[in-house]
Amino acid sequence: MTIRAVVFDAYGTLYDVQSVAAVTEQAFPGYGEIITQIWRIKQLEYTWLRSLMRRYQDFGAVTRDSLAYTLRALGLEHDGGVFERIMDKYLHLDLYPDAMAALAAMRDRKLAILSNGSPAMLDALVRNSGLDRVLDATISVDAQQVFKPAPEAYSLIERELGLPPAEVLFISSNPWDVCGAKAFGLNVAWIERVTPEAMRLACARTDVVAPLTLFKAIRTQMDELGLQPDYRIHALAELPGLVALH
Amino acid sequence: MTIRAVVFDAYGTLYDVQSVAAVTEQAFPGYGEIITQIWRIKQLEYTWLRSLMRRYQDFGAVTRDSLAYTLRALGLEHDGGVFERIMDKYLHLDLYPDAMAALAAMRDRKLAILSNGSPAMLDALVRNSGLDRVLDATISVDAQQVFKPAPEAYSLIERELGLPPAEVLFISSNPWDVCGAKAFGLNVAWIERVTPEAMRLACARTDVVAPLTLFKAIRTQMDELGLQPDYRIHALAELPGLVALH
Repeated sequence: MTIRAVVFDAYGTLYDVQSVAAVTEQAFPGYGEIITQIWRIKQLEYTWLRSLMRRYQDFGAVTRDSLAYTLRALGLEHDGGVFERIMDKYLHLDLYPDAMAALAAMRDRKLAILSNGSPAMLDALVRNSGLDRVLDATISVDAQQVFKPAPEAYSLIERELGLPPAEVLFISSNPWDVCGAKAFGLNVAWIERVTPEAMRLACARTDVVAPLTLFKAIRTQMDELGLQPDYRIHALAELPGLVALH
Repeated sequence: MTIRAVVFDAYGTLYDVQSVAAVTEQAFPGYGEIITQIWRIKQLEYTWLRSLMRRYQDFGAVTRDSLAYTLRALGLEHDGGVFERIMDKYLHLDLYPDAMAALAAMRDRKLAILSNGSPAMLDALVRNSGLDRVLDATISVDAQQVFKPAPEAYSLIERELGLPPAEVLFISSNPWDVCGAKAFGLNVAWIERVTPEAMRLACARTDVVAPLTLFKAIRTQMDELGLQPDYRIHALAELPGLVALH
């Protein structure tokens, strides 16, 4: 196998979606974490539900709708300014600390993002974080009007980069995204940021199972969808070494 | 509008999926509730993900896989007997207390279930609960090899009952199912079992936001998918009065 391109999921893989918590905590003291968790769950659900219902709206709309749901469900009153301030953070998410160095070390391959994000969101995010200097392409599923893990979404990699799935390594920390990419036929490395041991420890005392633990329990362990990643790593920093072997 | 058929979602609408908690609590003391919550979240996710990935497996397989995920994520060791005992409860779920009387009071209309459940699961469930005596049809999405909220799933109502969407009232407590049915063109009544006021009260103190509250927060409030039910009721008992008007 020769890896000619390394393609990354964006949200949760290169960019830490939990980095929104500082802004939500400032806006709603005591609710920062729970807002980001419900927001993320509903954001993903809405991408899947809208795709299945054939009622696609872009990720910007889905992100707004899921934030609106979250604040309503928690009974949090707010004005438009607060809402926009939180939304704006989604255009300035923190890169994982090892992201830039990892990408810079693989400049001998094509480097790209394939994301659910809308073109406008991704352009802003990539520019604000400086990734525009190392990426060859930023691909949005918007061109297919359907979200991952639909196969049409992954097919955009070949269309945009001109490389078949067998020559592409796809990277995601999201188990459902790993399974979707495998089902499509890509080579896939999963970033397992929460190990089974850490998860077991977090869940060992049921009297202290916190909402954050529940969130991790439903989102960070490999899914049971009959598919497995080709590679398991624990941080982006491990990636250049893995890619160098292929 | 003339309602000629009343069609029900099964899981969470006629049958209380949380009634599994007694069995899971017995098998894993202290973990009963959290197991049922993670199990339900992953069960729904897997129906959506498999549908999007075009890797349909029936609801029996999805229910097993999501239970396996749940026990693994929580680090709960178990033998095959325990696993099967929990699975078996899914064939003997409790009816909501007002379900039988509500259905019996509407015998002048066609009465049916449209469910994600596999034919084998639904047959057992309907027989074990005695609903076979009042239902005219039990419709499984399995005939289309795709799960709700895909439009193909809802199209089975017309195919099986011979009635167009405009003459059917669809009932669900699941907001995503309500939206899917509305998008398809059915008349829809939503059973809102957790009111916004109750939800606000449950979330008012962030230091005590429990996993169950998080589950309710992501699952029981109407979704932001640009669709609204035609009717909102709070219990199945309200349904005969509503149907009598049409």
